[in-house]
Amino acid sequence: MTLDPVVLAERLIDCESVTPATGAVFDCFEAMLKPLGFEIHRFIAGEAPDGPVENMFAIRRGPEGSRHFAFAGHLDVVPPGEGWTTGPFKAERRGELLYGRGAVDMKGSIASMVAAAAEVPAEAGTLSFIITGDEEGPARYGTVPLIELIREMKAEPDLCLVGEPTSVNRLGDMVKIGRRGSVNMWINCKGAQGHVAYPHLADNPIPRLIALLADLDALVLDDGTEWFQPSNLEITDLDVGNKATNVIPAEARARISIRFNDRHTGAGLVAMVEDVARRHKGEVRAVISGESFITLPGDYSTLIAEAVKAETGLDPELSTSGGTSDARFLRAVCPVVEFGLCNATMHKKDEAVALEDLSVLQRIYQRITLAALKT
Amino acid sequence: MTLDPVVLAERLIDCESVTPATGAVFDCFEAMLKPLGFEIHRFIAGEAPDGPVENMFAIRRGPEGSRHFAFAGHLDVVPPGEGWTTGPFKAERRGELLYGRGAVDMKGSIASMVAAAAEVPAEAGTLSFIITGDEEGPARYGTVPLIELIREMKAEPDLCLVGEPTSVNRLGDMVKIGRRGSVNMWINCKGAQGHVAYPHLADNPIPRLIALLADLDALVLDDGTEWFQPSNLEITDLDVGNKATNVIPAEARARISIRFNDRHTGAGLVAMVEDVARRHKGEVRAVISGESFITLPGDYSTLIAEAVKAETGLDPELSTSGGTSDARFLRAVCPVVEFGLCNATMHKKDEAVALEDLSVLQRIYQRITLAALKT
Ligand SMILES: [Zn+2]
Ligand SMILES: [Zn+2]
Repeated sequence: MTLDPVVLAERLIDCESVTPATGAVFDCFEAMLKPLGFEIHRFIAGEAPDGPVENMFAIRRGPEGSRHFAFAGHLDVVPPGEGWTTGPFKAERRGELLYGRGAVDMKGSIASMVAAAAEVPAEAGTLSFIITGDEEGPARYGTVPLIELIREMKAEPDLCLVGEPTSVNRLGDMVKIGRRGSVNMWINCKGAQGHVAYPHLADNPIPRLIALLADLDALVLDDGTEWFQPSNLEITDLDVGNKATNVIPAEARARISIRFNDRHTGAGLVAMVEDVARRHKGEVRAVISGESFITLPGDYSTLIAEAVKAETGLDPELSTSGGTSDARFLRAVCPVVEFGLCNATMHKKDEAVALEDLSVLQRIYQRITLAALKT
Repeated sequence: MTLDPVVLAERLIDCESVTPATGAVFDCFEAMLKPLGFEIHRFIAGEAPDGPVENMFAIRRGPEGSRHFAFAGHLDVVPPGEGWTTGPFKAERRGELLYGRGAVDMKGSIASMVAAAAEVPAEAGTLSFIITGDEEGPARYGTVPLIELIREMKAEPDLCLVGEPTSVNRLGDMVKIGRRGSVNMWINCKGAQGHVAYPHLADNPIPRLIALLADLDALVLDDGTEWFQPSNLEITDLDVGNKATNVIPAEARARISIRFNDRHTGAGLVAMVEDVARRHKGEVRAVISGESFITLPGDYSTLIAEAVKAETGLDPELSTSGGTSDARFLRAVCPVVEFGLCNATMHKKDEAVALEDLSVLQRIYQRITLAALKT
C-alpha cells in the first residue's frame, strides 16, 4: 500500500491537539494504522492540570523471533501563539511548503513514519508506534505509562527512533544520539524581617542568597566530554517580593536550571548544590526532569547515517545538543536515537515543512526500518 | 488661659486623619489656636495619590524684634490596622492611659504644645506652629511647601522643636539632635533572553546583578561618627519575575536602601553605587528621601535637656538613631531638635499615652519655649 506523507500530515495537522492531547488526532492516527495491520492499544491517563493525556501503542507483529523496531513520537503540539498567516490548525500548501502547527514538530515526521511503514512488508519483522499526547507538556502521563504498558505486554523493541525535528539547515544534517539531563532547583534563604533603620534587629537573607548564588555561579561542573558539551548551570529567577522600601525582608528565593552531560546524575548535582546552600543557610528543593543519556556511536547510528546518506548525500552530525525529549524515558528500554525534519520553524508561528522533505524522510525511515529489522 | 492637654488630645484623636489629611482635624486645631491669638494660614496642596494635603502655619507675633520659637509636627496618622480593643478614632481613657491613633504620634504632643502655648504670654516673643497633614506619607506636599510659605512671609523661626515621639522607656529619656539621611536605589541589569539549553545564544543578567550586589554588600561606608552610628546599606528586594524554568531572563532588578550619617550626601552615595553598577553593566535609579542632619550639642540642646531634667529628673540621651522625620526639611531654616512622648506604641494597635505624660510634656514644652525666646 502506498501512502502520500503530505496527505497524512495534512490530516493530522487539521486535528487541533494542543498539549495535553486526547481524542480526534488519535482517531485520525488510528484510522491510518489499522489498514496497515497494526494492533491498536489506546489509553487515557492523568487529570488536570497535567492531563488527561491520550497515548497509543500500535504494533504489527512479524514472524516468531523477528526483530522489533519502534517509531516514537508525539501528536500534541505547543500552543499556536499569534501572528500566523495561515490557520495553525488548517494545513495549507503554499508553493513547496506545507504550513500548520506540528508540520515539523512532529506530525510531519509521524506522517512520514506511517508512509514508511506502509512500504515495509509484515514479514520483515515487528514494527510499532509509541505515540503520546503529552511530550510538549510536563510529560507526566505520556511516554512513562506507555513504557509501562509495553513492559506489561512484554513488547519491548530492540531499537527505537524518536522523530523529533533534529535537522538544522537541511534534512539529514543532524542526528541526536543523546541528550543532556535537566534539573531545576528552587533555593530559599530565610532571615528575620525588620526596618532598614534598625538593621541590628533584623537578619537580611539577601546577602546570604547572593553569596550562595555567587558560589554556584563560580562552579565549573565539567569541561564537556567527547560527545557532550560542558554541563551548564543558569540562575533563572530571583524573587523577594518586598514592596516596602524601608523593610528588610524575611525571605529571599532563587531558581536555577542545570543541563548536564553523562559526567553527572541529577541526584549528584542536587547534593552538590545542597552543600553550597548549607554553607549559606539556604534550603533547596529540586525537580529532576530527566537524566542525560547517550547511545554511543556504533552499529545503530551507523545504520541511520547510511540511510540518511543514501537519500540525501549528507553525512549527519551525531549530536547531543539541545533540550530534552522523550528519548530520556525510552533509553531505559533499548538503544534510542532521534532523527527528523528541520527545526527552524518549530514552536514558532507559520511552522512549515518542505513537501519534498516529507517524501525524503519517508524513504529514510523506510531504509532505517528495514536495516534495523535485519540487524 | 489654662487648657487641659488630655482634653485637647481627645478632640484631635476623634478627628479621623489617616495620611494624607485635610479638613476636620485642622478645623479642630484652628479652633484651639484662634482663641490664643494665633494668626492662621491654611492651605491645601497636591493631588492624589500623594495629596491633597492640608497644612497650617499659625503665628502669634511678639513685640518688634523679639525671638521666634516654632513647634512643628503633623496631624496625619498612619492607618489604624487591625486588632484594636478601642475605636482607633474615638479617644478613650482607661485607667491612667488615653487610647487612640495618634495618641503619641503625634496628636498628644500637639495637644501639649497648645496647652503650653496657652501659658506663654504674648509679650515673651513670637511663637508659631508648623503643622502638616502629611508626615507619615511621601511628605511631598507637606512641610516642604509650608517652609516656602514661611519664607515668603519672612517669618522664619530662630529655633524649632519637632514633637515626634522620641522618648523610649520614660518621657524625657531621649532627645533627637539629628537623623540619618535616607536614599533608595533601584538597580537594573539587562541581558538577552534565551533558552537554558542554548546559553551561548543568551546573555543572563542575573550573574552580573549578583556580582554587583556582592560588591555593594562588601562596601564599608564609614565607621560611624561621634554622634552617628555607621552608615548602612541594605539590599531590600530582588526581582526577576521569570516563571519559565527553561528560560534565561532578559532583565534582573534589585532595590537597596542606605541610611547614612553626615559623612555622606545622598548624591555622593548615588555616584558611588553608580560606579559599582557600571562595572557590571547595571543601571541605577535613585530617590533621596532626605539628607542627614545634626544640630550639634550646644546651647539649644542644653536648654532642652535642662527643661526635661527640671520636670522629670532625667538627663536625656542626645541621639541620632531611627528613621527620618520632617526635621530633615526644617533644618534648612534654623536649628531643629526633636522631643516628644514615648514611642513604644506608635504605629501599633492600641496606641496609647499616659495621661500624666501629656501634662509633664506640656510643662517641659512651656519651659523650652520660654527659655528659647530668651536666648
Ligand atoms: Zn517535539
Ligand atoms: Zn510622627
